Amino acid sequence: MPAGEEHKNLETVNYLWKSFLENGLDRKSTVIALGGGVIGDMTGFAASTYMRGIDWIAVPTTLLSMVDASLGGKTGFDLPEGKNLIGAFHPPKLVLADVNFLKTLPERELISGMAEVVKHGIISDPELFELCKNGLSWVKDNLEAIVKRAMAVKIKVIEQDPYEKNMRATLNLGHTVGHAVELVSKFDLRHGEAIAIGMAVEAKYSAKVGLASQSIVEAIESTLKKLNLPVEIPNEMSHAEIIKAMRVDKKKNAKSIRFALPVEIGKVELIDVDDLEDVL
Amino acid sequence: MPAGEEHKNLETVNYLWKSFLENGLDRKSTVIALGGGVIGDMTGFAASTYMRGIDWIAVPTTLLSMVDASLGGKTGFDLPEGKNLIGAFHPPKLVLADVNFLKTLPERELISGMAEVVKHGIISDPELFELCKNGLSWVKDNLEAIVKRAMAVKIKVIEQDPYEKNMRATLNLGHTVGHAVELVSKFDLRHGEAIAIGMAVEAKYSAKVGLASQSIVEAIESTLKKLNLPVEIPNEMSHAEIIKAMRVDKKKNAKSIRFALPVEIGKVELIDVDDLEDVL
Repeated sequence: MPAGEEHKNLETVNYLWKSFLENGLDRKSTVIALGGGVIGDMTGFAASTYMRGIDWIAVPTTLLSMVDASLGGKTGFDLPEGKNLIGAFHPPKLVLADVNFLKTLPERELISGMAEVVKHGIISDPELFELCKNGLSWVKDNLEAIVKRAMAVKIKVIEQDPYEKNMRATLNLGHTVGHAVELVSKFDLRHGEAIAIGMAVEAKYSAKVGLASQSIVEAIESTLKKLNLPVEIPNEMSHAEIIKAMRVDKKKNAKSIRFALPVEIGKVELIDVDDLEDVL
Repeated sequence: MPAGEEHKNLETVNYLWKSFLENGLDRKSTVIALGGGVIGDMTGFAASTYMRGIDWIAVPTTLLSMVDASLGGKTGFDLPEGKNLIGAFHPPKLVLADVNFLKTLPERELISGMAEVVKHGIISDPELFELCKNGLSWVKDNLEAIVKRAMAVKIKVIEQDPYEKNMRATLNLGHTVGHAVELVSKFDLRHGEAIAIGMAVEAKYSAKVGLASQSIVEAIESTLKKLNLPVEIPNEMSHAEIIKAMRVDKKKNAKSIRFALPVEIGKVELIDVDDLEDVL
């Protein structure tokens, strides 16, 4: 099965359905998704709709999918018009996260995953954020502790709000700007790299509107840098394009966009922003 | 949107998703499915997967979809390999059944729908079954009473077993043989006509194995005939083909097929049958 965001489409899901059939899967079968976030998203969705729903097990092999994508039950695929437009809530029966997989990851992929770990620290685990400050090589030697704490944050949030009615939106920290930057880079930036930039930009905006202190901004930026993550929008990238991309996926007539902004390490607030130019 | 079983495929579902997008539907939108069973199945499925699930309302316009398809939350579409292979449980927020729609139906379509009404009588409402004995023209004058009782039976069954773990399988009465006959007829037979034949054949088998009395068989046959429904497998149809069709959709290695067989009017039993030739 092909992996990567460019394959996260209806064609691949249809290929999965056909494969399930060809291999004789029935309503009592269980599918195992071994791979990163895209593999999990599509396998979970194909499982959620095959014969009106069969079980699946997630075996995430990337840091990003361990601490984020495999948890929470969001599954689905992209349409040409936008990401994750078609999907279902269909959590795996089991998530088997073995940090030994991470030893086989390219370093850039591991670093990218650390952006979501830092995010989970900022949202609700100051101690996890402190651990991230130890830098990349310490992290590499302490992956189990890092992964456990980061998974725990996400599990806590989704248990309180499984269908994203309110609190789950705090997980969007860094993602409003980050997704847009990722899109404008045409995916040259990895997801976590874009999210790191998004967190830094959004932290600065949070300080600008008086929600966060300057020391919070500095703590976030220095921690990301210690993990070799970027914190600045690339010079060649047009702000107008980023703002346009932020508006995509939103309601046509929506006047404001909801941001999850850091207030302190361990606390995020949801704020509706009207003037997007003010953010960048 | 095109209707009819031949359009109940991924292409039409994809067309629906695109239309939802083009019309600016978001997570809080509600879709209304106005039409028969195929319209409801596909609209419900498209709604269940659009932005991970939006609400929908069923406005069934055929007797079949009022008393059967619109209730129970089964949604989905066919793959070339078989019917309803992809789907989800996603009940409409509201089912609006107005019998005035039925006055615009071709008579053959109304008669076809009566097969499921008779089925609901046999499964658990002897009084509904008695009403069906009054014949077609009485039924036409008393559609509201008929539809209400028939809907009540299905609602009772699905409330007890929403995910078809056991009791819901009683709704398959007439369908094991009926689906196969429908398939072999290449859909020349309407769904209800095929189910009527299936109920008559399965009732005879039930008597043969000593579960039902001969008087039950006769009551079922005469009631179906009074509604102008067929009770015999068409002469030109090969029994071998029907048996082959019954095996489709079953597990490759399954030795037996589960039948819902009438025991008395108002009671059905689930029986595993090994020798399918014995049934016809």
